[in-house]
Amino acid sequence: MKVICSKENLLNGINIVQKAVSTKTTLPILEGILLNADEKFKLTGNDLEIGIECFVEGDIRENGSVVINSKIFGDIVRRLPDSEVLIEVKENNLVVVECENSHFEIKGINPNGYPALPKVDKENVLTLTQGKLKDMIRQTVFAVGSDENRPVLTGSLIEVKDKELVVVSIDGFRLALRRKFLENDINDFSVIVPGKTLNEISKILQAGDEEVYIYNSNNQIVFDAQSWRIVSRLIEGKFLNYNSLLNKEFETRVIINIKEFQASLERASLISMNDKNSPVKLFIGNDKIVITSNAELGAVREEIKVDIEGNNLEIGYNPAFLIDALKAVDEDRAAIYFITTNAPCTLRPVIENSNDFAYLVQAVRI
Amino acid sequence: MKVICSKENLLNGINIVQKAVSTKTTLPILEGILLNADEKFKLTGNDLEIGIECFVEGDIRENGSVVINSKIFGDIVRRLPDSEVLIEVKENNLVVVECENSHFEIKGINPNGYPALPKVDKENVLTLTQGKLKDMIRQTVFAVGSDENRPVLTGSLIEVKDKELVVVSIDGFRLALRRKFLENDINDFSVIVPGKTLNEISKILQAGDEEVYIYNSNNQIVFDAQSWRIVSRLIEGKFLNYNSLLNKEFETRVIINIKEFQASLERASLISMNDKNSPVKLFIGNDKIVITSNAELGAVREEIKVDIEGNNLEIGYNPAFLIDALKAVDEDRAAIYFITTNAPCTLRPVIENSNDFAYLVQAVRI
Repeated sequence: MKVICSKENLLNGINIVQKAVSTKTTLPILEGILLNADEKFKLTGNDLEIGIECFVEGDIRENGSVVINSKIFGDIVRRLPDSEVLIEVKENNLVVVECENSHFEIKGINPNGYPALPKVDKENVLTLTQGKLKDMIRQTVFAVGSDENRPVLTGSLIEVKDKELVVVSIDGFRLALRRKFLENDINDFSVIVPGKTLNEISKILQAGDEEVYIYNSNNQIVFDAQSWRIVSRLIEGKFLNYNSLLNKEFETRVIINIKEFQASLERASLISMNDKNSPVKLFIGNDKIVITSNAELGAVREEIKVDIEGNNLEIGYNPAFLIDALKAVDEDRAAIYFITTNAPCTLRPVIENSNDFAYLVQAVRI
Repeated sequence: MKVICSKENLLNGINIVQKAVSTKTTLPILEGILLNADEKFKLTGNDLEIGIECFVEGDIRENGSVVINSKIFGDIVRRLPDSEVLIEVKENNLVVVECENSHFEIKGINPNGYPALPKVDKENVLTLTQGKLKDMIRQTVFAVGSDENRPVLTGSLIEVKDKELVVVSIDGFRLALRRKFLENDINDFSVIVPGKTLNEISKILQAGDEEVYIYNSNNQIVFDAQSWRIVSRLIEGKFLNYNSLLNKEFETRVIINIKEFQASLERASLISMNDKNSPVKLFIGNDKIVITSNAELGAVREEIKVDIEGNNLEIGYNPAFLIDALKAVDEDRAAIYFITTNAPCTLRPVIENSNDFAYLVQAVRI
């Protein structure tokens, strides 16, 4: 193998595939990046849960492939001058990396043992802009559970039903939902994608209008952009019936300024900082929310003006869960629907398509 | 005590005195900040090694004092809106912090048990601009030792002799020296200031022309700016005779471009990254330096063009020590003076007053 490419393109490719490279593995070859040159120059990272391929523009002088330790390769390329880089594989998988007056010879690994990415047929393709998918992940993935005893909740449901795409995360205490009407025709499907996969993908997705193609088999899902392709395992099992959790009835509805409410909750949660699950109390009434918290080291009282429809209410929350939901909403104002002191509240931004968003947070007994 | 001040000024003061607040201490009162209002509003942090006082502009309505936990006080003030803050001490040292619609009541501590800062007479005062002192610390403190068995080397020598100020750090493998001619009359003195103190001070010092006054007693040193004052213990003992280590003889003198040499050394040191003390080899001759390193995972060869006067030379170094010295120099080019493969080299920037700087690095047997 002999390839010449720019440092910038190479580093960009390394940064992408490194998101799938194991750092803790019993298989040393999985700590490496597979370099492959035939028609195109391709980098691959694969930790057997997620595999990422990335095509790097380059001048291929000789076909071939090799596996090179991901950390050392990345560290070297990161520190090279902004210039052309030559990568050449010599005898015994010795990889030469050359750039201006720098010359590295790194021991590579025979690529034959490198596990291939799972094959998935490109059928029933969901097409989104990268920016939209990035937003939908950001606005839901924080509510993915971490309890390994409930594996279904460690992923997000991605579902297409009647030309509507829904992404839902539930961790047992809260729910985050994003909905989007689809322009193109596509058959219904429903899969559970690991939270870890979604976090890594959202780092790779660009904010713009470039498209990404999503398709799946029984146990694998593919996110395919022009220059990279991610294959991830799916989580088996049946997701919770989120529809039964959503309703628009309320006894008390409050319209809040998101930044104000978030700042007050963040200050109030400082008082309970030594006890992360210590709830804050909300008193809703008289055109305001009063937030209070008491702990060993002191007490806090925060007051914000709001628009209230319905009954007065006193209710407790884990402030971190409310803050996460508020952070996920890009608008200035949100409506919060309360039923009773024992039912979860529902938060939606104040916009035309407010049904495209739902954040449920379970109340805490106070 | 009852004081009103701006959030910005208060936070600035907290950030400064927090650098002297213990996080690990058996005395809970030392985890606090002493607030004191009489003629001025003053904050104090003190870990018994370093004490910092800071004056905060404010409207004093009632004199008094209290100690409040530094972490919670800082966290609260950091998150307050940019507005006026009221601090009021109620019965039983309860501290009320109020700002717009936020109201905190934090349990304070009786200030009587708070240790006073050591008294030091303001005599024989060394006056410098904050920017100059900040530079002199930055350019020497990295070579302070960490070996607790050689306490003298865990600080920097600050010495005034014949109207010349010298700051020197030595860790047994390298030396960093900065010299400055003084305009004002001052008696000779010589003290050893803990590296930790110097690191904290350099974070507080501003880059500009504001002055700082330095004076000392037998075992304490004071750095006094207009709005803050730092008192630190001194290290007892006799510093090494650094003059005997410095000389300007050489067998080989090399003029290097600092950025180029630094980048090459940083790349070369990647190869030995699993063994931080693994040396790099320099071959000096034929108008270039060739840097090589060999390790289990591969090899590297870097080449840079330089101006050489004198003999060819092959010599080994810990690359990190050379890199630290190169980073400390703000100029574009430096001269490195080599004697033999067993003697330390001396690095100085290529400027008119090159004697104001000296970096010695011990060679490593290769």
